[in-house]
Amino acid sequence: MTPDQALEQLGRHRQRIDEIDLQILDLLNQRTVVVESIGQIKRTMNMAIYEPKREDDVFRNVTGNNRGPLPAAAVRRVFERIIDEMRTVQRERMERQEAGQKD
Amino acid sequence: MTPDQALEQLGRHRQRIDEIDLQILDLLNQRTVVVESIGQIKRTMNMAIYEPKREDDVFRNVTGNNRGPLPAAAVRRVFERIIDEMRTVQRERMERQEAGQKD
Repeated sequence: MTPDQALEQLGRHRQRIDEIDLQILDLLNQRTVVVESIGQIKRTMNMAIYEPKREDDVFRNVTGNNRGPLPAAAVRRVFERIIDEMRTVQRERMERQEAGQKD
Repeated sequence: MTPDQALEQLGRHRQRIDEIDLQILDLLNQRTVVVESIGQIKRTMNMAIYEPKREDDVFRNVTGNNRGPLPAAAVRRVFERIIDEMRTVQRERMERQEAGQKD
């Protein structure tokens, strides 16, 4: 492989990563919309917002269906971050709504 | 909304989240494969493995194309975790290869 060929291949691989990342981004935003709908239902029905059992189901879904090469522990940590960020979005939305109700 | 209707809607939303998560999982594994190809090229060509400028490009790609509802800062943190996990996979692979060469 010549240096030029290496750079050309790197460029194509990076373009592919950028495409994959935009697909992940789109799915993260779709997921946030669904999480917000769930939060809305739970608040309307006065149901518990935080359900540890459901979080276990989410982790089991992704680690149980993982064929790699990303190891299961890494998959779990990525989804812990995703869940945590969406929980923050939910909490901030609730705080804004409560602040709005007080006005 | 009756409690039964609420539970039925929650169930459908959760099924949708599980589907989205499996799509994210698939993309994470596709991304890992591409990252491994990049690492292989860099090692063959004795190029620098870690390129902070490229990481900035990755963050700019996702935050610049983000239309929400997930905030840009949350998107960045999720991708920091993704990049970090893939860097770990790469490092462990290199360590295994080097250990193998010593045998």
